Amino acid sequence: MKTAIAGASGYTGETLLRLLAGHPQVELAVVTSRSLTGQPVEDTHPMLRGRLGGLRFSPSEPESLAANGEIDLVFLALPHGTAAAFARPLVESGKKVIDLSADFRLGSPELYADYYGQIHPDPELLQQAAYVIPEISPQSWKNFPLVACPGCYPTSILMPLMPLLQEKLLGAKGIVINSISGISGAGKKADLFYSFIERHESVVAYGLPWHRHLSEIEEQLSTAAEAPVIVQFAPHLAPMKSGIATTITVPGGECSLESLYAAWQNTYRDCPFVSILPSAQHPDTTHVRGSNRIEFSAVFDPRTGNFVITSAIDNLMKGAAGQAVQIMNLSCGFSETAGLL
Amino acid sequence: MKTAIAGASGYTGETLLRLLAGHPQVELAVVTSRSLTGQPVEDTHPMLRGRLGGLRFSPSEPESLAANGEIDLVFLALPHGTAAAFARPLVESGKKVIDLSADFRLGSPELYADYYGQIHPDPELLQQAAYVIPEISPQSWKNFPLVACPGCYPTSILMPLMPLLQEKLLGAKGIVINSISGISGAGKKADLFYSFIERHESVVAYGLPWHRHLSEIEEQLSTAAEAPVIVQFAPHLAPMKSGIATTITVPGGECSLESLYAAWQNTYRDCPFVSILPSAQHPDTTHVRGSNRIEFSAVFDPRTGNFVITSAIDNLMKGAAGQAVQIMNLSCGFSETAGLL
Amino acid sequence: MKTAIAGASGYTGETLLRLLAGHPQVELAVVTSRSLTGQPVEDTHPMLRGRLGGLRFSPSEPESLAANGEIDLVFLALPHGTAAAFARPLVESGKKVIDLSADFRLGSPELYADYYGQIHPDPELLQQAAYVIPEISPQSWKNFPLVACPGCYPTSILMPLMPLLQEKLLGAKGIVINSISGISGAGKKADLFYSFIERHESVVAYGLPWHRHLSEIEEQLSTAAEAPVIVQFAPHLAPMKSGIATTITVPGGECSLESLYAAWQNTYRDCPFVSILPSAQHPDTTHVRGSNRIEFSAVFDPRTGNFVITSAIDNLMKGAAGQAVQIMNLSCGFSETAGLL
Amino acid sequence: MKTAIAGASGYTGETLLRLLAGHPQVELAVVTSRSLTGQPVEDTHPMLRGRLGGLRFSPSEPESLAANGEIDLVFLALPHGTAAAFARPLVESGKKVIDLSADFRLGSPELYADYYGQIHPDPELLQQAAYVIPEISPQSWKNFPLVACPGCYPTSILMPLMPLLQEKLLGAKGIVINSISGISGAGKKADLFYSFIERHESVVAYGLPWHRHLSEIEEQLSTAAEAPVIVQFAPHLAPMKSGIATTITVPGGECSLESLYAAWQNTYRDCPFVSILPSAQHPDTTHVRGSNRIEFSAVFDPRTGNFVITSAIDNLMKGAAGQAVQIMNLSCGFSETAGLL
Repeated sequence: MKTAIAGASGYTGETLLRLLAGHPQVELAVVTSRSLTGQPVEDTHPMLRGRLGGLRFSPSEPESLAANGEIDLVFLALPHGTAAAFARPLVESGKKVIDLSADFRLGSPELYADYYGQIHPDPELLQQAAYVIPEISPQSWKNFPLVACPGCYPTSILMPLMPLLQEKLLGAKGIVINSISGISGAGKKADLFYSFIERHESVVAYGLPWHRHLSEIEEQLSTAAEAPVIVQFAPHLAPMKSGIATTITVPGGECSLESLYAAWQNTYRDCPFVSILPSAQHPDTTHVRGSNRIEFSAVFDPRTGNFVITSAIDNLMKGAAGQAVQIMNLSCGFSETAGLL
Repeated sequence: MKTAIAGASGYTGETLLRLLAGHPQVELAVVTSRSLTGQPVEDTHPMLRGRLGGLRFSPSEPESLAANGEIDLVFLALPHGTAAAFARPLVESGKKVIDLSADFRLGSPELYADYYGQIHPDPELLQQAAYVIPEISPQSWKNFPLVACPGCYPTSILMPLMPLLQEKLLGAKGIVINSISGISGAGKKADLFYSFIERHESVVAYGLPWHRHLSEIEEQLSTAAEAPVIVQFAPHLAPMKSGIATTITVPGGECSLESLYAAWQNTYRDCPFVSILPSAQHPDTTHVRGSNRIEFSAVFDPRTGNFVITSAIDNLMKGAAGQAVQIMNLSCGFSETAGLL
Repeated sequence: MKTAIAGASGYTGETLLRLLAGHPQVELAVVTSRSLTGQPVEDTHPMLRGRLGGLRFSPSEPESLAANGEIDLVFLALPHGTAAAFARPLVESGKKVIDLSADFRLGSPELYADYYGQIHPDPELLQQAAYVIPEISPQSWKNFPLVACPGCYPTSILMPLMPLLQEKLLGAKGIVINSISGISGAGKKADLFYSFIERHESVVAYGLPWHRHLSEIEEQLSTAAEAPVIVQFAPHLAPMKSGIATTITVPGGECSLESLYAAWQNTYRDCPFVSILPSAQHPDTTHVRGSNRIEFSAVFDPRTGNFVITSAIDNLMKGAAGQAVQIMNLSCGFSETAGLL
Repeated sequence: MKTAIAGASGYTGETLLRLLAGHPQVELAVVTSRSLTGQPVEDTHPMLRGRLGGLRFSPSEPESLAANGEIDLVFLALPHGTAAAFARPLVESGKKVIDLSADFRLGSPELYADYYGQIHPDPELLQQAAYVIPEISPQSWKNFPLVACPGCYPTSILMPLMPLLQEKLLGAKGIVINSISGISGAGKKADLFYSFIERHESVVAYGLPWHRHLSEIEEQLSTAAEAPVIVQFAPHLAPMKSGIATTITVPGGECSLESLYAAWQNTYRDCPFVSILPSAQHPDTTHVRGSNRIEFSAVFDPRTGNFVITSAIDNLMKGAAGQAVQIMNLSCGFSETAGLL
């Protein structure tokens, strides 16, 4: 099967390139970049030297991609706002589209406008888009031509929380989420704030109190709970390349630790990318580095009546490119783990 | 003035040594270590080469320290349990004692037993001990012969929270605290878990749900609120040498952001080691690295009704050795900032 | 094909486990560890959770491994001295053995005694051992039952240098080699020197002037030059997990930069794991992280008459486990890159 | 004494600001920045919050600085080329000038043109400039109105080497120098190459074979040896904030290790910022972090006849701002260590 990546100059693009270059059933036919057109892809991504067979960046033009009859599936690794302009012609040309931007993550265009500061570029197309975490999204997603890959923070939060809200084990009030991310989450930028010296020895909160991913987190949790869920979300940066560690405090209500674990076991039985750790064994970002796995566990604090749930993912893998490839695998009938082990 | 340090082989001891070696009014007369007796101190702390005038470790014997008539003040940088055995003879000999261990931080010996897993070694001496954060503790602490320096996490939490609880601006329920610490907080250890390879690229929660510092945090907050305060506290490790970043979510009640800032301004006016940052400007551990300052700020989230307060300190400075020197300065009538700028 | 790993508790063992778990033609049948017998392998290597099918560590017994008729090939990831005790029974039982220790790297048992401080444990077996860098070793190595994998530093040094000495382009005198390694090169150790705090912000030379790998470097270079080669070798540690950057200064004699590059191109044509970079483009450890590639390039300094050659590898991959798998692939008739992309 | 800093927006400027803010005999009267004029200095350098008394950046104008009668001494922390334009009016106004740029480091304007790619901006002023490493430069430097502070790499190289060449213990041929620097050496830059992600896990050589500092290294060594000295110099970057580790290979000739150490002891007796370590104990950048000390040691390799000398400094301290303050102290009759411990 031939695939393309639109917008492959950043870290997510690099990870996608690496995964697809090693994928047994996929050929990487076209890789686009607006600013790097004509240049060898491996000049931008030297860690892929020798693995891309001389591939060069193509111009970043939605129409010519759509017109390319060889390509069956396109990954969009573009900024939000730009991705939507690619999605429509590609979907209309009959290609499968897996979008890693935020353009189709939210069901509500109003929410998009609130959080992204611009009118949604193609609200009608939202009808053809499915928000997909493969382990828990309704199986009907495979019928949608356009898949929105979740954000990195949301993946680390929704996977442990959604089954618990769906089964009404936990209430929707008082949830507090703190996440700590590696620097690659900010993208590939010539920006003093992201320089080695400024980030070294630095842990810092940012985007309080309304990070953009909050919109997506709350929309999904509300769907799961069948009631509005409002959470407190505090993201932080830590001096590492990749990884997200998330700590969720959630009032326990009547739920026992055993019920919580039973719900997880039930939901994630046979999921190759989910590691449910015993209570009090805490997920560690270094254990999921380079892997498409998520790890999570929970403890109960009888003094406060809260559960404290912790999770870890690699933001470039399960939080972005890895999950996108997993979605492709399932969508195309490949083994779920193809190219991901 | 002549001082001694009991137990100076670790990172807190090293920081204390550095600060005292550069202090204009203090002479470092005796430095003890059980395991390193007789060795040059700078062999253990090569970053102090040439600054200690040939000082060697003395045996770690409480009685001989107590009998040393030259010494006016002793810092205890010993493990909990051990520190208490030094405190009594030193106090009885009339010396001022500044203890950096946990032995005299808690007013309740029962709480000590619960959290430290052993009977309190000298509960009577608690009467002569004051828990001191110089900016907010009652001035009467100067009359106590024995000062307990707060833990690193508690310092980062209590300084922003205590004035707000004391003034009844905030309620005592639903407080959630997440802290992220550099690795030096764990001490100087030949332990695989703390090796470079295991901590590199690792962010991980630990000690959930009851870290030892929780006892101290809640006891102090309860005193401030004049009511029992129970909080959820989640500490994490991040791949940096020093620094603590703390994020506190606290239900806002009737308090406005302006009132909160006014309370802070009122409490911390003229405090050289406190930087109150504007709302939405987030404290960063790298900005307090090597400094005795604490930084904090707050945002209000009208959707949840919570304040999110963030703070940053250097765990070895304001979180340990720096604060101990600040306490010595005030106790001895030196300038508060002597040796700390 | 079924394989075993003897001694898989360290970082090299972990990398080997990961590579073999993802290898399309190999089944990992037995993994031994003296100290961890009976424990699930993934408890020691949490980054491999879910990928090892419940595999547990077997006892570390050479005879039972040798008697296991299912196993065709055994990797030895054991300390030097110990590996030799496994090699003999395994070779005698007809299995292929790929040894990652130093026991069979040196042709001379006297040199082994000098550099490793002990009598060689099995000098006779040296006759059946081949030292193999697949790209440049004589093809006859495939007839040897026992393969010695080169050390990490030697791989980074020999690959650029050996073709130049073999073709007499460079003389053997005055070669100065400086290498800088990530911390994983020291192994998995609960040792204060290798703690996060001690290695963070630290670059330090060590083992001057005679690091153990010097013996292997000089023996190989002397073979290539058909004359004794004595070099100055200075290894350093830098604060990163993996990677070796090597800088070689070598008097240029009559050789031109073009001839040097021509020799390289000639030797390494069609080698999938070798990237020869243009002059003045310097290899970077981060570009080979997680990869089995080596990168190198050279500049000529007409003022000094020297070439300065720089190279980069991942010490756990091309410097250890990756090269071992490459050797297995070639030895067993698999694709050279199987399991390595 | 009142001082000024021209160009204080970078990391060297920040370190100078910190040192001068804590210096007992100096008042920081004016701090200039072209791009930040009018802004509070502590907004650019948040780690100095509360220590600068509301100081704001002044316009970067040589004439107004020269006309400011209050100021006795000016530090130039400006780019090369720009510094010279400040030096002349300041010198002519009778102020002492300590220049941290490269403009007055080289005696030869031709060499400057070769290495810095531009005509020397004020060759006549070179007559009034002294290149100063306080421990070894001729004492006459105190009579010069303009002091050129050495570069960071040169300091780490010249301090161990110059006494040996001066005393003719070593020859001038075949010297090979490899240095490894923290990222702050590159300055404060919004540049993708210096971003956290690109430098993390990266060791890389650069600037081969002619780094700009080579000109200064060779000019000084030639002066010491009273003969032309040509060396091979290879600088590298390593993933740390500050620090330079230098490894020098130098043919030993007739010199013994004892003679070498005797020459060092003789030269550096009573120098508070020099730590001569025993042979085989290797300097470590983390041991000089934040300190104005240099550490060095040597081993002799009888096989090659070479000495291998290693040194370590903090590039922002002994390699830049610390040494500049040391020069000010000596120039103004303060204690050599004032403000530096």
